Amino acid sequence: MKTFINEIKENDHVESLFLVKEKSSGITKTGNAYLKLKLMDRSGEIEGRIWTSVETFADSFGKDDFVQVLGKASSFQEHLQLNITHIQRVGEEEILFSDFFPMAEKDIEEMFRSLLEISQQIKNPHLSQLLQLFWEDESFIKLFKMAPASKWLHHNYLGGLLEHTLSLVQLVLKNVSHYHGLNLDLLLTASILHDLGKVDELSYHRSFDYSDEGRLLGHIIIGIERLVDKIRQLPDFPKNLSTLLKHLLLSHHGQYIWGSPKRPMTLEAVMLHYLDDMDAKMNGIQQFIKKQVPEGSRWSTYHRMFDQYFYVPALWEQMELSDKIEKNKPEEE
Amino acid sequence: MKTFINEIKENDHVESLFLVKEKSSGITKTGNAYLKLKLMDRSGEIEGRIWTSVETFADSFGKDDFVQVLGKASSFQEHLQLNITHIQRVGEEEILFSDFFPMAEKDIEEMFRSLLEISQQIKNPHLSQLLQLFWEDESFIKLFKMAPASKWLHHNYLGGLLEHTLSLVQLVLKNVSHYHGLNLDLLLTASILHDLGKVDELSYHRSFDYSDEGRLLGHIIIGIERLVDKIRQLPDFPKNLSTLLKHLLLSHHGQYIWGSPKRPMTLEAVMLHYLDDMDAKMNGIQQFIKKQVPEGSRWSTYHRMFDQYFYVPALWEQMELSDKIEKNKPEEE
Amino acid sequence: MKTFINEIKENDHVESLFLVKEKSSGITKTGNAYLKLKLMDRSGEIEGRIWTSVETFADSFGKDDFVQVLGKASSFQEHLQLNITHIQRVGEEEILFSDFFPMAEKDIEEMFRSLLEISQQIKNPHLSQLLQLFWEDESFIKLFKMAPASKWLHHNYLGGLLEHTLSLVQLVLKNVSHYHGLNLDLLLTASILHDLGKVDELSYHRSFDYSDEGRLLGHIIIGIERLVDKIRQLPDFPKNLSTLLKHLLLSHHGQYIWGSPKRPMTLEAVMLHYLDDMDAKMNGIQQFIKKQVPEGSRWSTYHRMFDQYFYVPALWEQMELSDKIEKNKPEEE
Amino acid sequence: MKTFINEIKENDHVESLFLVKEKSSGITKTGNAYLKLKLMDRSGEIEGRIWTSVETFADSFGKDDFVQVLGKASSFQEHLQLNITHIQRVGEEEILFSDFFPMAEKDIEEMFRSLLEISQQIKNPHLSQLLQLFWEDESFIKLFKMAPASKWLHHNYLGGLLEHTLSLVQLVLKNVSHYHGLNLDLLLTASILHDLGKVDELSYHRSFDYSDEGRLLGHIIIGIERLVDKIRQLPDFPKNLSTLLKHLLLSHHGQYIWGSPKRPMTLEAVMLHYLDDMDAKMNGIQQFIKKQVPEGSRWSTYHRMFDQYFYVPALWEQMELSDKIEKNKPEEE
Amino acid sequence: MKTFINEIKENDHVESLFLVKEKSSGITKTGNAYLKLKLMDRSGEIEGRIWTSVETFADSFGKDDFVQVLGKASSFQEHLQLNITHIQRVGEEEILFSDFFPMAEKDIEEMFRSLLEISQQIKNPHLSQLLQLFWEDESFIKLFKMAPASKWLHHNYLGGLLEHTLSLVQLVLKNVSHYHGLNLDLLLTASILHDLGKVDELSYHRSFDYSDEGRLLGHIIIGIERLVDKIRQLPDFPKNLSTLLKHLLLSHHGQYIWGSPKRPMTLEAVMLHYLDDMDAKMNGIQQFIKKQVPEGSRWSTYHRMFDQYFYVPALWEQMELSDKIEKNKPEEE
Amino acid sequence: MKTFINEIKENDHVESLFLVKEKSSGITKTGNAYLKLKLMDRSGEIEGRIWTSVETFADSFGKDDFVQVLGKASSFQEHLQLNITHIQRVGEEEILFSDFFPMAEKDIEEMFRSLLEISQQIKNPHLSQLLQLFWEDESFIKLFKMAPASKWLHHNYLGGLLEHTLSLVQLVLKNVSHYHGLNLDLLLTASILHDLGKVDELSYHRSFDYSDEGRLLGHIIIGIERLVDKIRQLPDFPKNLSTLLKHLLLSHHGQYIWGSPKRPMTLEAVMLHYLDDMDAKMNGIQQFIKKQVPEGSRWSTYHRMFDQYFYVPALWEQMELSDKIEKNKPEEE
Repeated sequence: MKTFINEIKENDHVESLFLVKEKSSGITKTGNAYLKLKLMDRSGEIEGRIWTSVETFADSFGKDDFVQVLGKASSFQEHLQLNITHIQRVGEEEILFSDFFPMAEKDIEEMFRSLLEISQQIKNPHLSQLLQLFWEDESFIKLFKMAPASKWLHHNYLGGLLEHTLSLVQLVLKNVSHYHGLNLDLLLTASILHDLGKVDELSYHRSFDYSDEGRLLGHIIIGIERLVDKIRQLPDFPKNLSTLLKHLLLSHHGQYIWGSPKRPMTLEAVMLHYLDDMDAKMNGIQQFIKKQVPEGSRWSTYHRMFDQYFYVPALWEQMELSDKIEKNKPEEE
Repeated sequence: MKTFINEIKENDHVESLFLVKEKSSGITKTGNAYLKLKLMDRSGEIEGRIWTSVETFADSFGKDDFVQVLGKASSFQEHLQLNITHIQRVGEEEILFSDFFPMAEKDIEEMFRSLLEISQQIKNPHLSQLLQLFWEDESFIKLFKMAPASKWLHHNYLGGLLEHTLSLVQLVLKNVSHYHGLNLDLLLTASILHDLGKVDELSYHRSFDYSDEGRLLGHIIIGIERLVDKIRQLPDFPKNLSTLLKHLLLSHHGQYIWGSPKRPMTLEAVMLHYLDDMDAKMNGIQQFIKKQVPEGSRWSTYHRMFDQYFYVPALWEQMELSDKIEKNKPEEE
Repeated sequence: MKTFINEIKENDHVESLFLVKEKSSGITKTGNAYLKLKLMDRSGEIEGRIWTSVETFADSFGKDDFVQVLGKASSFQEHLQLNITHIQRVGEEEILFSDFFPMAEKDIEEMFRSLLEISQQIKNPHLSQLLQLFWEDESFIKLFKMAPASKWLHHNYLGGLLEHTLSLVQLVLKNVSHYHGLNLDLLLTASILHDLGKVDELSYHRSFDYSDEGRLLGHIIIGIERLVDKIRQLPDFPKNLSTLLKHLLLSHHGQYIWGSPKRPMTLEAVMLHYLDDMDAKMNGIQQFIKKQVPEGSRWSTYHRMFDQYFYVPALWEQMELSDKIEKNKPEEE
Repeated sequence: MKTFINEIKENDHVESLFLVKEKSSGITKTGNAYLKLKLMDRSGEIEGRIWTSVETFADSFGKDDFVQVLGKASSFQEHLQLNITHIQRVGEEEILFSDFFPMAEKDIEEMFRSLLEISQQIKNPHLSQLLQLFWEDESFIKLFKMAPASKWLHHNYLGGLLEHTLSLVQLVLKNVSHYHGLNLDLLLTASILHDLGKVDELSYHRSFDYSDEGRLLGHIIIGIERLVDKIRQLPDFPKNLSTLLKHLLLSHHGQYIWGSPKRPMTLEAVMLHYLDDMDAKMNGIQQFIKKQVPEGSRWSTYHRMFDQYFYVPALWEQMELSDKIEKNKPEEE
Repeated sequence: MKTFINEIKENDHVESLFLVKEKSSGITKTGNAYLKLKLMDRSGEIEGRIWTSVETFADSFGKDDFVQVLGKASSFQEHLQLNITHIQRVGEEEILFSDFFPMAEKDIEEMFRSLLEISQQIKNPHLSQLLQLFWEDESFIKLFKMAPASKWLHHNYLGGLLEHTLSLVQLVLKNVSHYHGLNLDLLLTASILHDLGKVDELSYHRSFDYSDEGRLLGHIIIGIERLVDKIRQLPDFPKNLSTLLKHLLLSHHGQYIWGSPKRPMTLEAVMLHYLDDMDAKMNGIQQFIKKQVPEGSRWSTYHRMFDQYFYVPALWEQMELSDKIEKNKPEEE
Repeated sequence: MKTFINEIKENDHVESLFLVKEKSSGITKTGNAYLKLKLMDRSGEIEGRIWTSVETFADSFGKDDFVQVLGKASSFQEHLQLNITHIQRVGEEEILFSDFFPMAEKDIEEMFRSLLEISQQIKNPHLSQLLQLFWEDESFIKLFKMAPASKWLHHNYLGGLLEHTLSLVQLVLKNVSHYHGLNLDLLLTASILHDLGKVDELSYHRSFDYSDEGRLLGHIIIGIERLVDKIRQLPDFPKNLSTLLKHLLLSHHGQYIWGSPKRPMTLEAVMLHYLDDMDAKMNGIQQFIKKQVPEGSRWSTYHRMFDQYFYVPALWEQMELSDKIEKNKPEEE
């Protein structure tokens, strides 16, 4: 059974699976070699030390490996440290991914099915064929189901890209008929594909970070490339439809300063930008509030990226007040 | 019957109702006094001149009066000019308001009924009582039904404030359940009241312009004052509910630079800002496109406020392409 | 007698009054409960620990209480810690407020009398009556005398709001006649009331922080509300005078980006903004220089908010040079 | 006697002095040469044409000359035009400068005397000697009395630099004692010299425009050079006093974006910046309001540089209200 | 022989080739149909009117056609107008392109040969093969030789893209060895391709304007697409080399606000950005100065995009001074 | 022989020269006085303690002295500390400057000779004479050879100003002929002098920091003063040449926000700005990459000033790929 890092206490004997995040070697004051590890799981990180059988273990596992560990927790300079007596590499198939990484709370397969169903509503044959090509691309689908939507800001967990995409698509369905003259097929397709490039922008198989491509090109450009690659397989795909679709992807950040090389110039692009931005902000704030509102407080800590604090109104209080006013009412009249 | 200004041609005899937008007097080369008028209706403006019986007419009407005019159109320096032989002031009850000012296309009473119905869904007794006070305030309702939402940017016609408010309320109803933990009653109330102050910000009984209060205080502050004035009549209205509601009004522009003295700090305030901004932009672009896309072009002229051009995709073309692809399909397979 | 925290040294026996800033409980390695406190006074903060009679003391006082403490200072991990053997809650009346919080150096009552005297110069009967209402509002006056003008930036001490207000009023008196056509009564009234809302923006009875209202609405809006509340009691108060007065309050920050929803549009509003901003900056820099110029340096440390350093010229040096030049003068000639 | 351009009416016979602002030649349809002039005085500009004796007059005067003109006003395409029958160059000594250029309303010599008197209050011998060098520099004084303070924004008339300088110095005297620890001598000297470089930044002997030096270097740098030039003549002038004085000149615009290469870093520099900026704004708005508030309006036209409108409250109205309230008072009590 | 529009004078009989920029029809006061044209060539534009044989000519030519025109120039309301008696469509092969559009002064074929030669210095086989694909693409080369580099700002003439590209490549050759460790092959390839997308961004066969693709996607993205299209034909092209090359294209504008979705992150990208920006500015200013420095002035008119004026120093003057100083030298010594 | 601080290990006996960066005294728990030092050399800093003979050593040396130290390294709270048994002040002549401060890698005298040679190419006699005055000013040359170009950003080592100046001059020589009509003499002179003021802006004889003058005036203004001082010695120096030269110095930062009080208005000023900025960035990034790319990574750490990461492509990899492709080539064809 998995022992989570945030549950380990001083003097605990620990036997569990962890991921090796860092690995280096050192020399003790008495001149012996030892191994310094940083181990992690979903719940946090802990320092690890191997003082004995160093030669045996040294080459048997590496950074980014999952390992089975046997050891005892001690306290060193106010921090816990795991003194490891046995360690062994285990394969990816022996671990439960969700023990190690934050995962979307909603079921990934279910979300994906919902997205597929919606995409089947698209009537324009070109757009429909285009999406079909993506849905037939298994390596893409595997990444698309796994990728987070962002390293920090919102949907920052495995499955987050899919969750955000589905959410945006649903928002489009709710709002599109509110205005006259919007092209639903175009909006749905663009929503489904808008953050496409995030499958390559971040690396997320061991920890969340930007890939080289992600930093040097960004998900907007990567997405355009993946899109162009599919469109090329559809020789009848109309040029101006392709241009409009690309415009929606390019402009969905809304402003140059937010990394869009073009600002939205069509009604569809304007709506896509607003709904995408709203969904990212709403989820981002909800994630932040979950972790960053100190107990007993209604205020979050300071959110650096947004440069502000967030307030969580006490809903129960308003409800109680509702009751009270009911009781008070006779007096009022 | 009303003759509209944009239908008048050289040498036409004109007999119709107009609004006097400007009025001044001049002296002809031969030393006689004459009157210079600018007349307007919904369709445009025209210069007017009274060369005879000047003493008779001079004091019989004024700027901002509706007048019945008899005259003949001539061309002076490439512009049409109405040489008036008779003019007479008429009361507001004799004219059709929509002949003179741009009006919302949707029926005002119907929109107002829809808004009332939605406001009756609000369960929180305080918020419900608060709205009730507004709905019982007839002078407010008269202004609220008439006011435009903006001088230039969006919903810039009589009834525009009501149309925009109803639109925002409907957007809130569509989107609120998409996120967990939002207070619908608070959001609906804030949406209904968010642009409240616009009833006083603009003057719109003769032409659209900012009132002194509008320029010196702005609709956000005026709205807060009108809100506070009603809340004061509800001694049991909870203080923190009042603070939250005011926060939503204050922060609905989203950024300091757009005139909000506070940025949105609650999930409700964040959603209100996005939906309000989206609705204003969407309507604004639609209004702009209607008038500012030259025939034969798919591009609008330059929109100064937004500092960009807008593109109107040819929807029919995509549809035709859809047909074509259907026909082509056999060949494809 | 008060022992100040910054005077406590290792091994000192301490018997003095403190304010409890934080209070929580812990468990020793041997399994006993103990109390962890953070105590503060004007001079700083110190950790406190209660190892014995924990049950007795645990519920006898709370966070934000003033307490009489008996204990001994020891050093733990490079920091001082007070091991408390006795602790007892005392009432607010038994302590000297200025022992616990930074206070204005000038006498509060005297400053308030000066402000009252100046406010009696106002001849406009409406403005005069308006101020009278504030001066008759005892609960307001109590807050107005106590509130700081800011949490960090300037006049950040009890009485700071009053000190800043008086200072601004005096600046107005010095400068108003320098320009033609300014309305002194309006300027004085607006100066007196300009930061009115700060009485509710900050909480300052135990520590300085923003109140919920302060963060969600801000002092400008809170001030407008308090102002409107008084004006309502004056049915003859002219509407346009009220609008002008509100405009001065709203626009006194000068720019949207500094939180003013309107920029100054009258000469009075422009002057008010400049003098207010100058007074805040001058005081802010003076406060900063007092604490943040390292001994032997003429440069302050880096001021984050202003993003710069400040320089304190050595005045004595210039004076000495003055002497020297006197002596040199004969040689010069 | 001077006939002012804004008084000329169609068919007037005109005999007066003007300044030639533009001069070029043209060919009539019948193939004859004629001269096209633009004439100006303080009140405006008028087109001039010389149809006869063209050869005689052509080389007898030039652009930027003052001329005595004989002619008749006619109307051409809605604009007045002066058909000139005689024209003759006159020397600068024959004209009244204030007939041709906007001048400060206050007496220049009187303002200069006031400035001298104030500068004699300076006790620091170095600063006092420094100013003395400027006051002994007659060519400087001539420019200093004549220069405007700005082409457009404020004090944009001959004598404006002196008027603005005196105004700033007086503001310094009013405000300096309000704060503790400011060096009055330094502040006065810096105020007197702060816009020094404007004597060379603008050319203002025929029309107001930037000189080459003004555009390429700016008045701040030109002023520093003129200052350095004088300080060099005072070998005992302390280096750090010189640095502080230069810092005040350099930083008086307050922000990089307003052309200051350094922001104010001493209390004196901060005050100088605020008072200078306030004085420029107040005068600029007053000048603007004088010309740009349409009759019957309380709002100025749009001020492009400040990107806003200004409001001129009706003071008399408030006064009348004061009377009214007096009369009402008995009823109130 | 071509008569250029800027040479036409009133009453001239004109017989020449023009391009039809606008074409519409009108009705005279007497009720007859006429044609309104706007004709253009390299030197300017002129209004054209066809009053007779309207039915004959009406359908014989259209907007964007080249036409042979016979007519007479008259003056209408201060503007010249060509009254056309005969008009006839001519084919593109009968006209001289450079009579109608601004062209690069340098020979296009010669510039292209220089570029080819430089591109042959590239040793990296992948990059070399990539460029080869472009040089073998004749339809691309045709556009690449013709396209301007910008509508307004710089190299705004036919051949401008090629001229700017060659210029940048030469700058790279001059500067690359100045710093250690730069990859010349990568820099040369990126320089050659950096503005690639401009071949589609602008339409430039009849007048310079943005194409739909240009406005909706921009030349950076269009260029990436054209690049990706070629790389796909090279299966061995290394992925990271491709990423680096794309990064250089994406980031060459240097800042988000200038339309780059990524900022330069490698030394090569930094250099490319600076040299490209310098070349665009230098050419842009030179073009502007040529046309926008009024005779007799050393200052250009105001450049809106750059928000400033430019100064053209009188070089001869400095040289003369050089001579003078030579002559003066003896006196100096 | 010099022992460098970054080579010292626990328990090492150390005997070497250091610079005293900080010096203060403390009292041990047992009540004895001791000395606390911070010692530095080129490689880093180390804490020093003198526990014995404190009275003897206390006044024998001071902060900013070079000292010969005898001591033993021990570890205290995870940091090394030098327990000093003997310490003695040594003169500047006994140490090797480059042991203590970062120095340019290139030879200073050689760089200076190169600069002199280039400056002799200048033909304009005024500019040539001007530079001659600088080259004859020995105290200036001493500073000019020693000064760093910046505290942090680029060329932040002794000799850095000279290295950057030479680099810029060489860039000018490479690029000037690329554009028509640039004045080489002016550009070379301005390049040589552009950062002139940095000799006084920073203090760099013991550590790099801003001088008072540097912070209060900045190197641009200081440079202008030094330039004006020399020009004054050349009575025939043409005024407009002087203005142009000063303009190039003033505007070389390119933007107000980067501290230039004027933006570049001539072609020479534009080029100077671009090449200077490119050289500073390229060197700054190279310096940063050297120290801030973790082993095994291709990405630098975050660069705060530039707000980004930098990427170091693996050049060898591309080369290997080149080889591989060679081998693959047969298969390709």
